Amino acid sequence: MAQNHLLLLPGDGIGTEIMAEVEKLIAHLKEKGLADFSYDTGLVGGCAYDAHGQAISEEDMEKALKADAVIFGAVGGPKWDDVPYDVRPEAGLLRLRKDLGLFANLRPAICYSALADASSLKKELVEGLDILIVRELTGGVYFGEPKEIIDLGDGQKRGIDTQVYDTYEIDRIARVAFDLARTRDNRVHSSEKRNVMKSGVLWHEVVTEVHKDYADVKLDHILADNCAMQLVRNPKQFDVIVTDNLFGDILSDAAAMLTGSLGMLPSASLGAPDANTGKRKALYEPVHGSAPDIAGQGMANPIAMLASFAMALRYSFEMIELADKLEGAISSVLDEGLRTGDIMQDGCKKVSTAEMGDAIIAKI
Amino acid sequence: MAQNHLLLLPGDGIGTEIMAEVEKLIAHLKEKGLADFSYDTGLVGGCAYDAHGQAISEEDMEKALKADAVIFGAVGGPKWDDVPYDVRPEAGLLRLRKDLGLFANLRPAICYSALADASSLKKELVEGLDILIVRELTGGVYFGEPKEIIDLGDGQKRGIDTQVYDTYEIDRIARVAFDLARTRDNRVHSSEKRNVMKSGVLWHEVVTEVHKDYADVKLDHILADNCAMQLVRNPKQFDVIVTDNLFGDILSDAAAMLTGSLGMLPSASLGAPDANTGKRKALYEPVHGSAPDIAGQGMANPIAMLASFAMALRYSFEMIELADKLEGAISSVLDEGLRTGDIMQDGCKKVSTAEMGDAIIAKI
Ligand SMILES: CC(C)[C@H](C(=O)O)[C@@H](O)C(=O)O
Ligand SMILES: CC(C)[C@H](C(=O)O)[C@@H](O)C(=O)O
Repeated sequence: MAQNHLLLLPGDGIGTEIMAEVEKLIAHLKEKGLADFSYDTGLVGGCAYDAHGQAISEEDMEKALKADAVIFGAVGGPKWDDVPYDVRPEAGLLRLRKDLGLFANLRPAICYSALADASSLKKELVEGLDILIVRELTGGVYFGEPKEIIDLGDGQKRGIDTQVYDTYEIDRIARVAFDLARTRDNRVHSSEKRNVMKSGVLWHEVVTEVHKDYADVKLDHILADNCAMQLVRNPKQFDVIVTDNLFGDILSDAAAMLTGSLGMLPSASLGAPDANTGKRKALYEPVHGSAPDIAGQGMANPIAMLASFAMALRYSFEMIELADKLEGAISSVLDEGLRTGDIMQDGCKKVSTAEMGDAIIAKI
Repeated sequence: MAQNHLLLLPGDGIGTEIMAEVEKLIAHLKEKGLADFSYDTGLVGGCAYDAHGQAISEEDMEKALKADAVIFGAVGGPKWDDVPYDVRPEAGLLRLRKDLGLFANLRPAICYSALADASSLKKELVEGLDILIVRELTGGVYFGEPKEIIDLGDGQKRGIDTQVYDTYEIDRIARVAFDLARTRDNRVHSSEKRNVMKSGVLWHEVVTEVHKDYADVKLDHILADNCAMQLVRNPKQFDVIVTDNLFGDILSDAAAMLTGSLGMLPSASLGAPDANTGKRKALYEPVHGSAPDIAGQGMANPIAMLASFAMALRYSFEMIELADKLEGAISSVLDEGLRTGDIMQDGCKKVSTAEMGDAIIAKI
């Protein structure tokens, strides 16, 4: 079967609008004979809850498990702030991550040179910035049990979450980080709080052990609080940062914002290679959220979504050249001065979601 | 008893040098008849481990429990990187926090105007910045049980930490935050990850409930990852941020670094008011660490330590005027161009730890 099969899950808010640009791109690639993707679509998040009371249906989960890759938009919005915990929009995303076994979340924080001025940091500190955060995505406090609220009586409740990491979980994410470092600047910072957390002690121990297989890669250990500081002080000191689910959530968001290119940043979530086919399950999503305030107005920035598709080409389909071409197209429309509202600058041309998508696709 | 009694715990690294300036200040206040403090000194951290194999001795814990306030320097250094977990330098600080019941950690992130240029952020984003982070300090993942590493056999271990919050713990820290907001800009952001953590759901619920007693204060809820982003994007949008132990650790360090004034920032850790005397147990410490790389060279910046002493005057001894005077003295030596090495700028005068201390004290 030469055809590669995708599941598109636009989700809520601006998810639909930015996913429309992916559909255009897929059609364009087929028309030009550059790549042949078939796809299904499904519901996730608030829209799935509205349709059938679950953050993702069993049927769509089936489709996700069968697809070569899932392309994900964004979930959530004020409309669903008060739905029950188990069916809140995020539950759909968390279930996809867990049931697909997507333990490795790759979050590049790069600063597009055309946008270096948009950062809150001084330009010289972010220009050329290129960090890769490798976040563990299926363990830690996100999934550990017990996770509950207990009624203690007398008006007292107890909220409990459990941070759990096993050796093999740390081992495999460390290997992903070291492998990726070898394709980059060959440096890894491993971040935890081993001075207060036992899971951090184990994290530190296992990463140190795995490093023996990667003696050519430079490894530094950095406490998570210091890592947050150093990201703010001088982000260019980092190449690859590997960290747990919760620290990864916070540190990668801080790093993304530092670049000034938040609306541009993609992510990839990968599973382990299949024992028979060698293929990894995968989900690709923009780092930004569903932006309900601007949804439906055709003004959302589709770049992070298209850049996520580029990551799919690279990591799921080994279409490296095409991925490079797509990323190049994004840089060059920015260099030409095209801007959606979120990144508008003096002297640039303000365009809609569709116009931005068209301009990028036209270059491929 | 008119005399107020302190315990000074200089700790490791630059701790001793910066604490010497506090001792000078105490002598000066007495000589001038401005305030009368008696004090003991003790060991904490690596130096305590070296002396008696514990991160703080029982005897020094006794002294801490009896003192009106503990003045704390800093702990840790590479020398003690491999000591057993239970007696690592940080354990001394954590025990003080826990046994003294210091649940409320106040971390001001202010930008000294003389230093606005030193921030990695654009000057206009940090000039005049004045945030107060109120961090819960005796609960959460720092102290929850189980906290252990289990051997699973077959080369597999499991690291476990437990995040636990009870209603009363959230209630009391929320009240501290709301009370302090009333003395400031009357706005509180409460930060958690209620979209993935049950303790976050409870946190959100209790803070919302407590807010009913503070209807005049503006309350916003913000997810911790978004809070990290917003701190980087536009820190001046915040007044008071209240958050749990672990998020507080990371967010307050990021905020401190944003100001460009890290070596200047103090903190206060307060207990509940005593039922009889109304007095709170308290510990005051600089936000920066023990800086082993520059220890013993007389070049450390004593400002955060002296500013922590100013917080002691304010929160433990109601010497508000004297606190204002000390803080004013710090600002004015900075305005006059005196700088320790860490904050040196063109056209300023580089001074030693002792010279900086003397200059500040001379103004009081
Ligand atoms: C939506 C939410 C559950 C999610 C997370 O916390 O992982 C998001 O913040 C992210 O980083 O992908
Ligand atoms: C030294 C360490 C245990 C401590 C913490 O994590 O609380 C420190 O980082 C702090 O913020 O005071």
